[in-house]
Amino acid sequence: MDKVQLVKIGGNIIENPELVADFLKDFAALKGPKILVHGGGKEATALAKKMGVEVSLVDGRRITDAANLELITMVYAGKLNKSIVAQLQSLSCNAVGITGADGNAYTAKKRAVQELDYGFVGDLTQINTDFFKNLLLQNNCPVCCAVSHDGQGQLLNTNADTIAAAIAVALSEHFEVVLTYCFEKNGVLETLQDENSVIPIIDSKTYGELKSKGIIAEGMLPKLHNCFEALEQGVQEIRIGGPKIFSENNPFTKIQK
Amino acid sequence: MDKVQLVKIGGNIIENPELVADFLKDFAALKGPKILVHGGGKEATALAKKMGVEVSLVDGRRITDAANLELITMVYAGKLNKSIVAQLQSLSCNAVGITGADGNAYTAKKRAVQELDYGFVGDLTQINTDFFKNLLLQNNCPVCCAVSHDGQGQLLNTNADTIAAAIAVALSEHFEVVLTYCFEKNGVLETLQDENSVIPIIDSKTYGELKSKGIIAEGMLPKLHNCFEALEQGVQEIRIGGPKIFSENNPFTKIQK
Repeated sequence: MDKVQLVKIGGNIIENPELVADFLKDFAALKGPKILVHGGGKEATALAKKMGVEVSLVDGRRITDAANLELITMVYAGKLNKSIVAQLQSLSCNAVGITGADGNAYTAKKRAVQELDYGFVGDLTQINTDFFKNLLLQNNCPVCCAVSHDGQGQLLNTNADTIAAAIAVALSEHFEVVLTYCFEKNGVLETLQDENSVIPIIDSKTYGELKSKGIIAEGMLPKLHNCFEALEQGVQEIRIGGPKIFSENNPFTKIQK
Repeated sequence: MDKVQLVKIGGNIIENPELVADFLKDFAALKGPKILVHGGGKEATALAKKMGVEVSLVDGRRITDAANLELITMVYAGKLNKSIVAQLQSLSCNAVGITGADGNAYTAKKRAVQELDYGFVGDLTQINTDFFKNLLLQNNCPVCCAVSHDGQGQLLNTNADTIAAAIAVALSEHFEVVLTYCFEKNGVLETLQDENSVIPIIDSKTYGELKSKGIIAEGMLPKLHNCFEALEQGVQEIRIGGPKIFSENNPFTKIQK
């Protein structure tokens, strides 16, 4: 075992069962050791509405109080994670669905209260590389959701992009790691409205240019920032693309140093 | 590794967070390889009410339609399972929470529609002994919930007592297995109203007598039937007791051939 594929699929894909089913077929067909990290999408918010749980946003950021953490745990670790695992099993991919608490896979620290109290939101502190290695060596495919824990009994809501990058970095000490981010677009677009304007390669030089031109902005900024950090820390290759990125001849953006 | 402790805690305990916390302290302190199986309790029903999902009972038996299966998956595999896992991690017990789909741990067949259509209820067909062995060898403690899968992508609601017995039987081919059922009473009671009337030992001979006297009836009948079957199939020892069964000098009922 020397190469590991780590794939993150975003919330916008997760919300569409048909897209998920197609994506999982491609993912299951990937040869060799692999890990899936999935976001949560809007389903926890929808469930909150149904249950009369208030979803509070401050400056566009979601505050995770105890009731919302419970919903997130039910939706991310329960409904979504187990649905993905069962589908992967039917595709002969021996998936094991986990949160950060399972096997102490990823640990986080509750974000300190400063101007804003995010509630039960955690920033990653540690990845249990041995746990992942053991699962991979036994031909299991870890399927990770965006719930971590603090080691003291508290589950925490943690960003899935960051979890994917942190696992990729931790494993890159032992393996060649290819990290793929799948989201609703086919890659980083030159023109946001034009799906065919996928930028094939972004390196640290062109990244600066694209930023100054305003082509990379908003949500894509932290995503790419994380990518370059992960590359600096040993991840071999990073790709950003759509849910069909593993189909032949599909465009994507390659991020390189 | 030659002895495995397999403990099942019932729904009535699961509903009480303080009882669960106390129980988990005792469970985490058990030495050697161990497995926990947990029931679901009434929380899925409570959630169904909140969400306006109909819970249908036919002849006292719960029918698991798609909406109820989703709720069960959220509550059992999400909320309850991950809360238990996070608590065990804080007690230095390296728990890994699973459904039957994870690692293909336990597979079931959807119950055939005869007089009654139970919906998405599954009867166990197979235990993946290797998956459990590997987790135990790496000092992980599997924490199993009452959701299995059919291997074709379908999750299924499956009785937790039966899951515990089936795993115990499967592992007894390789290990000495002690199976403990923890429920709300301190054991099988001679007089249902008298908590102090715990019957210390039941063997197949006294079992017949207790049945004919009507002392063992209703819910205890299938439980004990499963116990004797598990003993016949190789399980070394079975105990039935309350949530404090692992505390010193606590009474319990030992079931033996």
